[in-house]
Amino acid sequence: MSREAKPLVVAVVGATGVVGKTMIKILSERKFLVAELRLLASGRSAGTTLTVDGRTLTVGEATPAAFEGVDIALFSAGGDVSRQLAPEAAVRGATVIDNSNGWRMDPAVPLIVSQVNPDDAEWHEGIIANPNCSTMQLVPVLMALRDTAGIERVVVDTYQSVSGTGADAIAEMEAQIRAHVAGEEKVASVYPHPIAFNVLPEIDVFLENGYTREEWKVLTESRKILHMPDLRLSCTAVRVPVFVSHSEAVHVETTRPMSPEEARRAFAAVPGIVVMDDPATHLYPIAEQAAGTDEVYVGRIRTDPSVERGLAFWVVSDNVRKGAATNAVQIAEILVERGWVEARSRRELASPVGERP
Amino acid sequence: MSREAKPLVVAVVGATGVVGKTMIKILSERKFLVAELRLLASGRSAGTTLTVDGRTLTVGEATPAAFEGVDIALFSAGGDVSRQLAPEAAVRGATVIDNSNGWRMDPAVPLIVSQVNPDDAEWHEGIIANPNCSTMQLVPVLMALRDTAGIERVVVDTYQSVSGTGADAIAEMEAQIRAHVAGEEKVASVYPHPIAFNVLPEIDVFLENGYTREEWKVLTESRKILHMPDLRLSCTAVRVPVFVSHSEAVHVETTRPMSPEEARRAFAAVPGIVVMDDPATHLYPIAEQAAGTDEVYVGRIRTDPSVERGLAFWVVSDNVRKGAATNAVQIAEILVERGWVEARSRRELASPVGERP
Repeated sequence: MSREAKPLVVAVVGATGVVGKTMIKILSERKFLVAELRLLASGRSAGTTLTVDGRTLTVGEATPAAFEGVDIALFSAGGDVSRQLAPEAAVRGATVIDNSNGWRMDPAVPLIVSQVNPDDAEWHEGIIANPNCSTMQLVPVLMALRDTAGIERVVVDTYQSVSGTGADAIAEMEAQIRAHVAGEEKVASVYPHPIAFNVLPEIDVFLENGYTREEWKVLTESRKILHMPDLRLSCTAVRVPVFVSHSEAVHVETTRPMSPEEARRAFAAVPGIVVMDDPATHLYPIAEQAAGTDEVYVGRIRTDPSVERGLAFWVVSDNVRKGAATNAVQIAEILVERGWVEARSRRELASPVGERP
Repeated sequence: MSREAKPLVVAVVGATGVVGKTMIKILSERKFLVAELRLLASGRSAGTTLTVDGRTLTVGEATPAAFEGVDIALFSAGGDVSRQLAPEAAVRGATVIDNSNGWRMDPAVPLIVSQVNPDDAEWHEGIIANPNCSTMQLVPVLMALRDTAGIERVVVDTYQSVSGTGADAIAEMEAQIRAHVAGEEKVASVYPHPIAFNVLPEIDVFLENGYTREEWKVLTESRKILHMPDLRLSCTAVRVPVFVSHSEAVHVETTRPMSPEEARRAFAAVPGIVVMDDPATHLYPIAEQAAGTDEVYVGRIRTDPSVERGLAFWVVSDNVRKGAATNAVQIAEILVERGWVEARSRRELASPVGERP
């Protein structure tokens, strides 16, 4: 049910970060109806000014009181900040769309990819989580297979850009590139090893089981978003010296046989997926071309001969935009379009979300 | 059976290329007993001088007559040159160790990784093939699993450096890096798209089935080397902006269950494999550290929960050294050590290898 949208008070928390800045840009690009844009960040960044649509806005400190009157709060400020402040925002009537890892696996928090499970937004209790970037671009593609051939098992190996880590990582890689050109030693501090002209199979912290949390997120978040609690998926998450866009090599064992041609049609039918697949003209998704766009690109679609019903393909998307900022704004659009902002606020007053450990 | 080695006449064909130069260096490093080192290349490169162990050697043109008196000819000059000249060298009594794709899948040509199937060198008829670099580093690791837990299926996605393409590709990436620093457009000619700060899922030409020849080589060559004609393997081969060393994310379904600890022991027992696996100290194989060494490094060894008996791990090796030049010299060492150089020459005179299409 679509309603006439009225301008909302929108807060962006972590406004000075790579994703925060992109959220601001995308709100403007998509002409999201904003009555007031409130830019918030840590005390350290408060006072910074940002130019938005020609106006100079000052970044305020993200305190609980700063959320008074906010309708939608887009958070991209890390898990600790979100765990602390998202309930404060929610209890004040804001609907939080959180890009951190802080709430994603909370059973009371929907985890949403706009074109995959928008309906899950309906049962939110003040906080909606935005998935991890490597999960984000994978699930629309997996959805296409889930709904046609069925999925038995997924293997995905990632090629993730440094912008997924943030501005510090981009600066570190730039400095290492300049050191290389100058014939100097590359210095690493954001990553444990130099990332320029290297590949690092470590993203986020290591878990007891030998996986990184990034790899485990791809498994657990995909299960939650796709409503496939038993989805079998294995991932190796790897950082590569690319500025923007994550790439993924994916191998899927399907339930019934599916030709590459059928898969191409199934992928192309999903909103926001673009099939780029013409080997003869060297056409396949590549990171640099995907940067700055909002689509998920799929190519190199072929039969995987190592299983009876196998498909292999290559998925690329801008990790800062669709992988984070764009999807967050798309979730906000779903809330507005379906009239779930106000509905949430009413429910919230009766049953506030408490602080969580 | 080890025999006393006597110095041999060794030719290096493609002596001015990245792999050829490394072959020369490794012959010297490993103190291979060379009576005469004959450096050969195309007419275009003939006349170039190279300094070897302090002596200046002039590169001669690789013609059939240039192989007169040669005992071992190390070829790294591309498939066309090998298909044309390797039989010419063999018919003149040389044993050819060929790094190109020209002979690898010929049933009369053994395809050898030194620590995996050295015995196959015995049945050569004048030409022995050196595997493709991405296959080279994978098969010693797979051998360890074949001989312990058994292998049902392998998925491998690669992160391959530009040195695998050659000196032109290294120069192209360097130029693109400098263009980036200067704020200029990156120009691509060796690869279809810029490789600096990008990842390209295209290595070698595309086949009718949607795979690249590089991906298909990993399947067919692994089958031949491991003597597993039915090995099930799926690969996505990807070029990344790294100068030296290929990395591989590998997921293996084993025949019987195997713990990561057991796998670590099995890998470590293979000559030339080094297990580097301590997540707590960020210790895992990484491309830049492997460069300049001759080992195959394995780490990130963990259970793959997406299949009943699964293992996942990360394999890195210097693609120019172990992936090409070092293994070629190691094959020459096997021939010498087992007295198969002369044996081959005698056989050859009775049954020369003819030219092939």
